[in-house]
Amino acid sequence: MGDPAGISPELTARLLALPELRGLCHFITIGDRRVLDEGAEIAGVSLDLETCRPADIPTAPSERPVFVDLEHLDPEEVRKGEASLAGGTFAIENFRTALLLAKEGRVDGVCFTPFNKKAMRYAYPGYDDEIRFVSDVLGYEGRMREFNVLDRIWNARVTSHIPLGAVAGSITQEAILAELELTADCLRQAGIEAPRIAVAGLNPHAGDGGSFGMEEIDIIEPAVRQAQERGLLADGPFPADTVFLRALKEGFHAVLTMYHDQGQIAMKVMGFDKGVTMIGGLPFPLCTPAHGTAYDIAGRGIADIGASREAVLLAVRMASSRSLKRAAE
Amino acid sequence: MGDPAGISPELTARLLALPELRGLCHFITIGDRRVLDEGAEIAGVSLDLETCRPADIPTAPSERPVFVDLEHLDPEEVRKGEASLAGGTFAIENFRTALLLAKEGRVDGVCFTPFNKKAMRYAYPGYDDEIRFVSDVLGYEGRMREFNVLDRIWNARVTSHIPLGAVAGSITQEAILAELELTADCLRQAGIEAPRIAVAGLNPHAGDGGSFGMEEIDIIEPAVRQAQERGLLADGPFPADTVFLRALKEGFHAVLTMYHDQGQIAMKVMGFDKGVTMIGGLPFPLCTPAHGTAYDIAGRGIADIGASREAVLLAVRMASSRSLKRAAE
Repeated sequence: MGDPAGISPELTARLLALPELRGLCHFITIGDRRVLDEGAEIAGVSLDLETCRPADIPTAPSERPVFVDLEHLDPEEVRKGEASLAGGTFAIENFRTALLLAKEGRVDGVCFTPFNKKAMRYAYPGYDDEIRFVSDVLGYEGRMREFNVLDRIWNARVTSHIPLGAVAGSITQEAILAELELTADCLRQAGIEAPRIAVAGLNPHAGDGGSFGMEEIDIIEPAVRQAQERGLLADGPFPADTVFLRALKEGFHAVLTMYHDQGQIAMKVMGFDKGVTMIGGLPFPLCTPAHGTAYDIAGRGIADIGASREAVLLAVRMASSRSLKRAAE
Repeated sequence: MGDPAGISPELTARLLALPELRGLCHFITIGDRRVLDEGAEIAGVSLDLETCRPADIPTAPSERPVFVDLEHLDPEEVRKGEASLAGGTFAIENFRTALLLAKEGRVDGVCFTPFNKKAMRYAYPGYDDEIRFVSDVLGYEGRMREFNVLDRIWNARVTSHIPLGAVAGSITQEAILAELELTADCLRQAGIEAPRIAVAGLNPHAGDGGSFGMEEIDIIEPAVRQAQERGLLADGPFPADTVFLRALKEGFHAVLTMYHDQGQIAMKVMGFDKGVTMIGGLPFPLCTPAHGTAYDIAGRGIADIGASREAVLLAVRMASSRSLKRAAE
């Protein structure tokens, strides 16, 4: 369960009530039963759960969805629409518990309903973003990256939360190649056997043959060629302002962009609020709806479940293929 | 008339046949009558024009649309779908003639159907883009900028065809202010009395309070404040990945972006192929459909007239308000 001041409680309740998900996975939901029950009331759903304390989480898949009650938040303590220490602490503890269950191999994937960054920072001052927190909690040193998934298109990026002025200097062949390999891995886990990836240029019109920048010629093209030599179905660089339209038209599964807004501008205009954010690179899938806590509509029971449902479905798909792979080993 | 190997001839013919435009303006079309007639045949329209040589262009508005026949291209010389010197020369001469008519005050605005950059460069090796060519032909030294117009939203930009690595260093308060003033001027000419302009940030999440770059705090915010002090309805900086959605939702008339792809990615995903490119800053409006020569469908009579029609309508609207202003002076 994510931030309790937003739509997370009602989304969690609604997810647990979706009949089509119950057949696909065994839910273990972490939060406070009082907060969940309030969410269920807001959402107008009734829940049939097996509630337990953290020490008593069943080790075998249970028939009914399991709710792990940390008993750490009375909903009265949080005012809807306001970031607070209590709300942040609630979300941080839920997230940490879920991550540790995944680390111990007791769950195959993790999803979370939206966090509020300000509240997370009240509770955990070093909170930069999910990736940093996951790495702190798990002591995981591998390469982790955020992917954005909207309908059939994935967006991966070479650089992310850095100043635009630092982007050009951070684009290297190694970084592009590593990103292409991780993207292809994650797409395969999601069930796409031969993932095709379109690579964006860096400069306007992809440099227009070197007229407005040389990175396409000096760095990106050679990286794409190397990726192809390694058997990856990568192509580009393509001009950034049409690469998403091209990807949709030509059936690419993902677009690798060079910087944050190159992808985010396109994804948000295409309606990415309905999409999913996936943290790739961990030994388990970690998914969340792309939209935020929606403080403005919290508690009104009108929050759309679509993106949260997609987040669970993606985690299930990826976890299944991981389980299959493990079983085959 | 633009590039004869693409859809320009059929678009020109179709434009001249639109009854709703004939009541709004007096067309003076420049090209070769044989190329136009072929376009009319492809488009399946019949034209009623007064054809003359360049020396005989009527000085008073004529009842029928005027066609200025430069007699410089036999359509047989150009193969559809191929950039050529002959095609480029045709378009360059048409464009030059139109610009000089505008400079002499004999027309109130200029529109062109799409050019092919390669063909233009064959004919005029120094051809960089329209702005550079216009400045060469007219000896015009004023500030000229490209605007992209899609439905109700305009996109202006502080930097354009430069490497991404040079963008951050080119963002200054002066440049932002000059752009805001030119944008407001052009919007007013287009009939919007109190233009509201949303300003994009430069960095991811508009810098997130200085975490990923300081340009928002050091440069963009102060520039927006100065603009407001001068009476401009500017606001921002807003995160680039949602600024267009915000502008549409909150009724801004324009978005000022910091660099080329920041605007182009959003505009193209929103369907900018149906939009209009307008060169602002000249003493007359200069408009063209945003799409290209469409070599792949040239000659098939299926080219959509929508964007060309919008280009003419915008030029008419802007030229009328200029004429009104001149008449009032």
